[in-house]
Amino acid sequence: MQLPSTLLENAVAAFAKLPGIGKKTALRLVLHLLKQDEEVTIEFGEVLQKMRKEIKFCQRCFNISDGTICSICANSGRSKEMICVVENIRDVIAIENTQQFNGTYHVLGGIISPLDGIGPDQLTIEPLIERIKKDKVTELIFALNPTIQGDTTIYYIQKKLADSTCRITTIARGIAFGGELEYADEMTLGKSISNRQPVQQYIK
Amino acid sequence: MQLPSTLLENAVAAFAKLPGIGKKTALRLVLHLLKQDEEVTIEFGEVLQKMRKEIKFCQRCFNISDGTICSICANSGRSKEMICVVENIRDVIAIENTQQFNGTYHVLGGIISPLDGIGPDQLTIEPLIERIKKDKVTELIFALNPTIQGDTTIYYIQKKLADSTCRITTIARGIAFGGELEYADEMTLGKSISNRQPVQQYIK
Repeated sequence: MQLPSTLLENAVAAFAKLPGIGKKTALRLVLHLLKQDEEVTIEFGEVLQKMRKEIKFCQRCFNISDGTICSICANSGRSKEMICVVENIRDVIAIENTQQFNGTYHVLGGIISPLDGIGPDQLTIEPLIERIKKDKVTELIFALNPTIQGDTTIYYIQKKLADSTCRITTIARGIAFGGELEYADEMTLGKSISNRQPVQQYIK
Repeated sequence: MQLPSTLLENAVAAFAKLPGIGKKTALRLVLHLLKQDEEVTIEFGEVLQKMRKEIKFCQRCFNISDGTICSICANSGRSKEMICVVENIRDVIAIENTQQFNGTYHVLGGIISPLDGIGPDQLTIEPLIERIKKDKVTELIFALNPTIQGDTTIYYIQKKLADSTCRITTIARGIAFGGELEYADEMTLGKSISNRQPVQQYIK
Protein backbone atom coordinates (compact mmCIF):
# COMPACT_ATOMS: atom_id res chain seq x y z
CA MET A 1 0.00 0.00 0.00
CA GLN A 2 1.61 3.21 -1.18
CA LEU A 3 0.62 6.39 0.61
CA PRO A 4 0.77 9.84 -0.94
CA SER A 5 2.61 11.53 1.96
CA THR A 6 5.48 10.61 4.26
CA LEU A 7 3.75 12.36 7.18
CA LEU A 8 0.76 10.11 6.62
CA GLU A 9 2.98 7.09 6.23
CA ASN A 10 4.73 7.75 9.56
CA ALA A 11 1.42 8.19 11.37
CA VAL A 12 0.05 4.97 9.87
CA ALA A 13 3.23 3.11 10.83
CA ALA A 14 2.95 4.41 14.41
CA PHE A 15 -0.61 3.11 14.76
CA ALA A 16 0.25 -0.17 13.05
CA LYS A 17 2.82 -0.89 15.78
CA LEU A 18 0.02 -1.25 18.33
CA PRO A 19 -1.17 -4.81 18.97
CA GLY A 20 -4.06 -5.99 16.81
CA ILE A 21 -3.92 -3.01 14.45
CA GLY A 22 -2.91 -3.67 10.87
CA LYS A 23 -1.99 -1.17 8.19
CA LYS A 24 -5.52 -0.84 6.82
CA THR A 25 -7.03 -0.19 10.23
CA ALA A 26 -4.19 2.22 11.01
CA LEU A 27 -4.95 4.18 7.85
CA ARG A 28 -8.63 4.32 8.76
CA LEU A 29 -7.75 5.70 12.22
CA VAL A 30 -5.35 8.30 10.82
CA LEU A 31 -7.86 9.46 8.21
CA HIS A 32 -10.45 9.72 10.97
CA LEU A 33 -8.12 12.02 12.91
CA LEU A 34 -7.51 14.06 9.75
CA LYS A 35 -11.25 14.61 9.37
CA GLN A 36 -11.55 16.00 12.90
CA ASP A 37 -10.38 19.43 14.06
CA GLU A 38 -6.65 19.82 14.61
CA GLU A 39 -7.15 20.13 18.37
CA VAL A 40 -8.56 16.59 18.58
CA THR A 41 -5.26 15.09 17.45
CA ILE A 42 -3.17 17.53 19.51
CA GLU A 43 -5.16 16.56 22.60
CA PHE A 44 -5.02 12.87 21.76
CA GLY A 45 -1.22 13.02 21.64
CA GLU A 46 -0.98 15.10 24.79
CA VAL A 47 -3.28 12.88 26.84
CA LEU A 48 -1.18 9.82 25.93
CA GLN A 49 2.15 11.54 26.59
CA LYS A 50 0.95 12.95 29.92
CA MET A 51 -0.34 9.52 30.93
CA ARG A 52 2.94 7.84 30.07
CA LYS A 53 5.08 10.47 31.81
CA GLU A 54 3.06 10.97 34.97
CA ILE A 55 1.52 7.61 35.73
CA LYS A 56 2.94 5.94 38.81
CA PHE A 57 2.85 2.47 40.24
CA CYS A 58 1.64 1.87 43.79
CA GLN A 59 4.63 1.21 46.05
CA ARG A 60 2.74 -1.47 47.94
CA CYS A 61 0.90 -3.48 45.30
CA PHE A 62 2.42 -2.22 41.99
CA ASN A 63 -1.02 -1.41 40.62
CA ILE A 64 -1.34 1.70 38.45
CA SER A 65 -1.81 4.75 40.60
CA ASP A 66 -2.07 8.53 40.48
CA GLY A 67 0.06 8.82 43.64
CA THR A 68 2.58 6.71 45.53
CA ILE A 69 -0.17 4.49 47.02
CA CYS A 70 -3.08 3.36 44.85
CA SER A 71 -6.70 4.01 45.72
CA ILE A 72 -7.30 0.37 46.67
CA CYS A 73 -4.36 0.20 49.11
CA ALA A 74 -5.29 3.61 50.53
CA ASN A 75 -8.89 2.52 51.17
CA SER A 76 -9.16 1.76 54.91
CA GLY A 77 -12.30 -0.32 54.28
CA ARG A 78 -10.31 -2.96 52.42
CA SER A 79 -8.62 -5.81 54.26
CA LYS A 80 -4.83 -5.56 54.23
CA GLU A 81 -4.58 -9.12 55.58
CA MET A 82 -5.95 -10.57 52.39
CA ILE A 83 -3.87 -10.25 49.23
CA CYS A 84 -4.94 -11.30 45.77
CA VAL A 85 -1.90 -12.01 43.58
CA VAL A 86 -2.41 -11.19 39.88
CA GLU A 87 -0.24 -11.09 36.81
CA ASN A 88 -1.04 -7.62 35.54
CA ILE A 89 -3.17 -4.54 35.93
CA ARG A 90 -5.88 -5.73 33.57
CA ASP A 91 -6.54 -8.60 35.98
CA VAL A 92 -6.99 -6.14 38.86
CA ILE A 93 -9.56 -4.24 36.80
CA ALA A 94 -11.36 -7.47 35.85
CA ILE A 95 -11.59 -8.65 39.48
CA GLU A 96 -12.62 -5.21 40.74
CA ASN A 97 -15.50 -5.29 38.27
CA THR A 98 -16.89 -8.45 39.89
CA GLN A 99 -17.21 -6.56 43.23
CA GLN A 100 -16.57 -9.88 45.00
CA PHE A 101 -13.25 -9.08 46.60
CA ASN A 102 -12.64 -6.76 49.53
CA GLY A 103 -8.93 -7.32 50.13
CA THR A 104 -5.92 -5.77 48.44
CA TYR A 105 -3.93 -6.82 45.39
CA HIS A 106 -0.38 -7.59 44.45
CA VAL A 107 0.58 -7.17 40.79
CA LEU A 108 3.46 -9.52 39.90
CA GLY A 109 4.17 -7.81 36.58
CA GLY A 110 4.23 -11.18 34.78
CA ILE A 111 4.61 -14.84 35.60
CA ILE A 112 7.62 -17.10 35.78
CA SER A 113 8.35 -18.19 32.23
CA PRO A 114 11.90 -19.41 31.59
CA LEU A 115 11.24 -19.72 27.84
CA ASP A 116 10.54 -15.97 27.65
CA GLY A 117 13.48 -15.25 29.93
CA ILE A 118 11.27 -14.21 32.84
CA GLY A 119 12.56 -15.48 36.16
CA PRO A 120 11.41 -14.76 39.74
CA ASP A 121 13.81 -11.81 40.00
CA GLN A 122 12.01 -9.85 37.30
CA LEU A 123 8.73 -10.11 39.18
CA THR A 124 7.63 -8.38 42.36
CA ILE A 125 7.86 -11.59 44.42
CA GLU A 126 10.36 -10.24 47.00
CA PRO A 127 8.17 -7.24 47.91
CA LEU A 128 5.21 -9.63 48.16
CA ILE A 129 7.03 -11.84 50.73
CA GLU A 130 7.93 -8.71 52.69
CA ARG A 131 4.35 -7.47 52.61
CA ILE A 132 3.10 -10.83 53.90
CA LYS A 133 5.45 -10.64 56.86
CA LYS A 134 4.95 -6.96 57.62
CA ASP A 135 1.17 -6.79 57.29
CA LYS A 136 0.57 -10.17 58.99
CA VAL A 137 -1.29 -11.37 55.94
CA THR A 138 -3.67 -14.21 56.76
CA GLU A 139 -4.66 -15.21 53.27
CA LEU A 140 -2.95 -15.13 49.90
CA ILE A 141 -5.24 -15.72 46.91
CA PHE A 142 -3.63 -16.55 43.58
CA ALA A 143 -5.65 -15.28 40.62
CA LEU A 144 -3.26 -16.21 37.81
CA ASN A 145 -4.16 -17.45 34.37
CA PRO A 146 -4.52 -21.26 34.43
CA THR A 147 -1.40 -22.12 32.46
CA ILE A 148 1.78 -24.03 33.26
CA GLN A 149 3.59 -20.76 33.82
CA GLY A 150 0.87 -19.64 36.23
CA ASP A 151 1.09 -22.91 38.15
CA THR A 152 4.89 -22.67 38.27
CA THR A 153 4.61 -19.20 39.76
CA ILE A 154 2.14 -20.41 42.39
CA TYR A 155 4.41 -23.32 43.24
CA TYR A 156 7.48 -21.06 43.53
CA ILE A 157 5.82 -18.53 45.84
CA GLN A 158 4.21 -21.25 47.93
CA LYS A 159 7.64 -22.84 48.49
CA LYS A 160 9.00 -19.46 49.58
CA LEU A 161 6.22 -19.22 52.17
CA ALA A 162 6.72 -22.74 53.51
CA ASP A 163 7.30 -21.53 57.09
CA SER A 164 4.50 -18.97 57.02
CA THR A 165 1.12 -19.54 58.68
CA CYS A 166 -0.56 -17.62 55.90
CA ARG A 167 -3.38 -19.52 54.19
CA ILE A 168 -2.68 -19.93 50.49
CA THR A 169 -5.52 -20.39 48.03
CA THR A 170 -6.18 -20.12 44.32
CA ILE A 171 -9.31 -18.98 42.59
CA ALA A 172 -11.51 -21.93 41.61
CA ARG A 173 -11.07 -23.44 38.20
CA GLY A 174 -14.21 -21.98 36.72
CA ILE A 175 -12.12 -20.71 33.87
CA ALA A 176 -11.24 -23.05 31.03
CA PHE A 177 -7.60 -24.03 30.46
CA GLY A 178 -5.91 -21.72 28.02
CA GLY A 179 -8.51 -19.02 28.75
CA GLU A 180 -7.61 -15.43 29.58
CA LEU A 181 -8.74 -13.84 32.82
CA GLU A 182 -9.69 -10.53 31.30
CA TYR A 183 -12.20 -12.10 28.92
CA ALA A 184 -13.98 -14.21 31.52
CA ASP A 185 -17.53 -13.07 32.26
CA GLU A 186 -18.03 -11.46 35.66
CA MET A 187 -20.23 -14.28 36.97
CA THR A 188 -17.56 -16.94 36.37
CA LEU A 189 -14.78 -14.75 37.63
CA GLY A 190 -16.77 -13.74 40.73
CA LYS A 191 -17.66 -17.37 41.55
CA SER A 192 -14.08 -18.44 41.06
CA ILE A 193 -13.03 -15.98 43.75
CA SER A 194 -15.66 -17.00 46.31
CA ASN A 195 -14.92 -20.74 45.65
CA ARG A 196 -11.13 -20.41 46.03
CA GLN A 197 -9.31 -23.63 47.01
CA PRO A 198 -6.27 -24.38 49.23
CA VAL A 199 -3.16 -24.76 47.09
CA GLN A 200 -2.25 -28.18 48.57
CA GLN A 201 -5.53 -29.55 47.31
CA TYR A 202 -5.07 -27.91 43.91
CA ILE A 203 -1.47 -28.96 43.29
CA LYS A 204 -1.54 -32.60 44.53
CA MET B 1 -15.28 -0.60 33.88
CA GLN B 2 -13.62 1.33 36.68
CA LEU B 3 -9.97 2.22 36.23
CA PRO B 4 -7.53 2.88 39.07
CA SER B 5 -6.18 6.15 37.72
CA THR B 6 -7.64 9.21 36.03
CA LEU B 7 -4.58 9.50 33.77
CA LEU B 8 -5.26 5.97 32.57
CA GLU B 9 -8.95 6.72 32.22
CA ASN B 10 -8.30 9.76 30.04
CA ALA B 11 -5.93 7.82 27.79
CA VAL B 12 -8.42 4.97 27.42
CA ALA B 13 -11.21 7.44 26.65
CA ALA B 14 -9.03 9.09 23.98
CA PHE B 15 -8.41 5.79 22.22
CA ALA B 16 -12.03 4.70 22.59
CA LYS B 17 -13.12 7.76 20.59
CA LEU B 18 -11.48 6.32 17.48
CA PRO B 19 -13.79 4.38 15.15
CA GLY B 20 -14.01 0.64 15.79
CA ILE B 21 -12.16 0.79 19.11
CA GLY B 22 -14.12 -0.06 22.23
CA LYS B 23 -13.14 0.46 25.85
CA LYS B 24 -11.55 -2.98 26.26
CA THR B 25 -9.42 -2.63 23.14
CA ALA B 26 -8.51 0.91 24.19
CA LEU B 27 -7.33 -0.37 27.57
CA ARG B 28 -5.25 -3.05 25.90
CA LEU B 29 -3.58 -0.45 23.66
CA VAL B 30 -2.87 1.89 26.57
CA LEU B 31 -1.41 -0.90 28.71
CA HIS B 32 0.71 -1.91 25.72
CA LEU B 33 2.12 1.63 25.58
CA LEU B 34 2.71 1.52 29.34
CA LYS B 35 4.79 -1.63 28.93
CA GLN B 36 7.05 0.01 26.34
CA ASP B 37 9.69 2.62 27.04
CA GLU B 38 8.48 6.11 27.69
CA GLU B 39 9.97 7.35 24.40
CA VAL B 40 7.67 5.07 22.38
CA THR B 41 4.58 6.91 23.63
CA ILE B 42 6.24 10.33 23.36
CA GLU B 43 7.14 9.60 19.76
CA PHE B 44 3.72 8.15 18.99
CA GLY B 45 2.08 11.36 20.17
CA GLU B 46 4.56 13.56 18.34
CA VAL B 47 4.24 11.72 15.01
CA LEU B 48 0.46 12.11 15.11
CA GLN B 49 0.56 15.76 16.13
CA LYS B 50 3.17 16.59 13.47
CA MET B 51 1.10 14.77 10.85
CA ARG B 52 -2.07 16.66 11.80
CA LYS B 53 -0.35 20.05 11.93
CA GLU B 54 1.80 19.80 8.82
CA ILE B 55 -0.17 17.69 6.42
CA LYS B 56 -1.56 19.60 3.47
CA PHE B 57 -4.18 18.92 0.88
CA CYS B 58 -3.28 19.21 -2.79
CA GLN B 59 -4.70 22.50 -4.12
CA ARG B 60 -5.68 20.83 -7.38
CA CYS B 61 -7.19 17.50 -6.43
CA PHE B 62 -7.58 17.72 -2.60
CA ASN B 63 -5.63 14.52 -2.11
CA ILE B 64 -3.31 14.37 0.90
CA SER B 65 0.03 15.92 0.11
CA ASP B 66 3.34 16.91 1.64
CA GLY B 67 3.39 20.14 -0.39
CA THR B 68 0.87 22.38 -2.11
CA ILE B 69 0.57 19.98 -5.06
CA CYS B 70 0.41 16.21 -4.50
CA SER B 71 2.84 13.76 -6.08
CA ILE B 72 0.21 12.47 -8.51
CA CYS B 73 -0.70 15.94 -9.84
CA ALA B 74 3.00 16.91 -9.96
CA ASN B 75 3.86 13.81 -12.04
CA SER B 76 4.22 14.99 -15.64
CA GLY B 77 3.72 11.41 -16.88
CA ARG B 78 0.11 11.41 -15.75
CA SER B 79 -2.67 12.68 -17.96
CA LYS B 80 -4.23 15.92 -16.67
CA GLU B 81 -7.06 15.60 -19.20
CA MET B 82 -8.48 12.55 -17.47
CA ILE B 83 -9.89 13.00 -13.97
CA CYS B 84 -11.16 10.23 -11.72
CA VAL B 85 -13.66 11.60 -9.19
CA VAL B 86 -13.62 9.80 -5.82
CA GLU B 87 -15.24 10.29 -2.45
CA ASN B 88 -12.18 10.20 -0.22
CA ILE B 89 -8.46 9.59 0.03
CA ARG B 90 -8.83 5.88 0.75
CA ASP B 91 -10.42 5.47 -2.67
CA VAL B 92 -7.39 7.14 -4.30
CA ILE B 93 -5.10 4.68 -2.52
CA ALA B 94 -7.29 1.72 -3.56
CA ILE B 95 -7.30 2.75 -7.24
CA GLU B 96 -3.57 3.55 -7.21
CA ASN B 97 -2.91 0.02 -5.96
CA THR B 98 -4.56 -1.42 -9.07
CA GLN B 99 -1.95 0.39 -11.25
CA GLN B 100 -4.62 0.61 -13.98
CA PHE B 101 -5.17 4.36 -14.03
CA ASN B 102 -2.79 6.92 -15.44
CA GLY B 103 -4.84 10.09 -15.09
CA THR B 104 -5.29 12.39 -12.10
CA TYR B 105 -7.84 12.36 -9.28
CA HIS B 106 -10.31 14.69 -7.68
CA VAL B 107 -11.27 14.02 -4.06
CA LEU B 108 -14.80 15.28 -3.36
CA GLY B 109 -14.46 14.95 0.41
CA GLY B 110 -17.81 13.14 0.66
CA ILE B 111 -20.96 12.64 -1.40
CA ILE B 112 -24.22 14.57 -1.52
CA SER B 113 -26.35 13.23 1.32
CA PRO B 114 -29.13 15.59 2.49
CA LEU B 115 -30.02 13.27 5.40
CA ASP B 116 -26.52 13.74 6.83
CA GLY B 117 -26.67 17.47 6.08
CA ILE B 118 -24.08 17.25 3.30
CA GLY B 119 -24.96 19.43 0.32
CA PRO B 120 -22.95 20.26 -2.83
CA ASP B 121 -21.41 23.32 -1.14
CA GLN B 122 -19.55 21.20 1.43
CA LEU B 123 -17.87 19.20 -1.32
CA THR B 124 -15.13 20.26 -3.73
CA ILE B 125 -17.50 20.35 -6.72
CA GLU B 126 -16.87 24.02 -7.63
CA PRO B 127 -13.06 23.52 -7.90
CA LEU B 128 -13.73 20.40 -10.00
CA ILE B 129 -15.84 22.36 -12.51
CA GLU B 130 -13.09 24.99 -12.71
CA ARG B 131 -10.43 22.33 -13.26
CA ILE B 132 -12.43 20.77 -16.08
CA LYS B 133 -12.64 24.14 -17.85
CA LYS B 134 -9.07 25.20 -17.19
CA ASP B 135 -7.27 21.94 -17.98
CA LYS B 136 -9.49 21.10 -20.99
CA VAL B 137 -10.41 17.79 -19.41
CA THR B 138 -11.59 15.24 -21.98
CA GLU B 139 -12.87 12.52 -19.66
CA LEU B 140 -14.37 12.51 -16.20
CA ILE B 141 -14.59 9.07 -14.58
CA PHE B 142 -16.82 8.71 -11.54
CA ALA B 143 -15.55 6.09 -9.10
CA LEU B 144 -18.12 6.57 -6.34
CA ASN B 145 -19.69 3.88 -4.21
CA PRO B 146 -22.84 2.50 -5.90
CA THR B 147 -25.40 4.00 -3.53
CA ILE B 148 -28.28 6.41 -3.98
CA GLN B 149 -26.08 9.20 -2.58
CA GLY B 150 -23.34 8.30 -5.06
CA ASP B 151 -25.77 8.33 -7.95
CA THR B 152 -27.22 11.65 -6.77
CA THR B 153 -23.73 13.17 -6.74
CA ILE B 154 -23.02 11.90 -10.25
CA TYR B 155 -26.35 13.28 -11.46
CA TYR B 156 -25.69 16.69 -9.85
CA ILE B 157 -22.21 17.10 -11.33
CA GLN B 158 -23.33 15.84 -14.72
CA LYS B 159 -26.08 18.49 -14.79
CA LYS B 160 -23.52 21.16 -13.97
CA LEU B 161 -21.46 20.04 -16.96
CA ALA B 162 -24.40 19.99 -19.39
CA ASP B 163 -22.73 22.43 -21.79
CA SER B 164 -19.28 20.81 -21.58
CA THR B 165 -17.88 18.51 -24.27
CA CYS B 166 -16.13 16.42 -21.62
CA ARG B 167 -16.91 12.69 -21.79
CA ILE B 168 -18.49 11.52 -18.52
CA THR B 169 -18.23 7.85 -17.49
CA THR B 170 -18.54 5.74 -14.34
CA ILE B 171 -16.57 2.66 -13.38
CA ALA B 172 -18.31 -0.52 -14.54
CA ARG B 173 -20.87 -2.09 -12.24
CA GLY B 174 -20.99 -5.84 -12.46
CA ILE B 175 -20.18 -9.14 -10.86
CA ALA B 176 -16.94 -9.03 -8.87
CA PHE B 177 -14.09 -11.40 -9.68
CA GLY B 178 -14.52 -14.55 -7.60
CA GLY B 179 -18.17 -13.62 -7.01
CA GLU B 180 -20.95 -16.15 -7.47
CA LEU B 181 -23.71 -15.32 -9.94
CA GLU B 182 -26.45 -16.87 -7.83
CA TYR B 183 -25.62 -14.73 -4.80
CA ALA B 184 -25.37 -11.44 -6.68
CA ASP B 185 -28.15 -8.97 -5.92
CA GLU B 186 -30.71 -8.35 -8.67
CA MET B 187 -29.63 -4.75 -9.19
CA THR B 188 -26.01 -5.71 -9.88
CA LEU B 189 -26.87 -8.73 -12.01
CA GLY B 190 -29.41 -6.73 -14.01
CA LYS B 191 -26.89 -3.94 -14.65
CA SER B 192 -24.22 -6.45 -15.63
CA ILE B 193 -26.53 -7.90 -18.27
CA SER B 194 -27.70 -4.61 -19.74
CA ASN B 195 -24.10 -3.33 -19.80
CA ARG B 196 -22.73 -6.52 -21.38
CA GLN B 197 -19.43 -6.18 -23.24
CA PRO B 198 -18.10 -7.74 -26.47
CA VAL B 199 -15.99 -10.75 -25.55
CA GLN B 200 -13.04 -9.48 -27.60
CA GLN B 201 -12.92 -6.39 -25.40
CA TYR B 202 -13.23 -8.47 -22.23
CA ILE B 203 -10.50 -10.96 -23.09
CA LYS B 204 -7.83 -8.67 -24.56
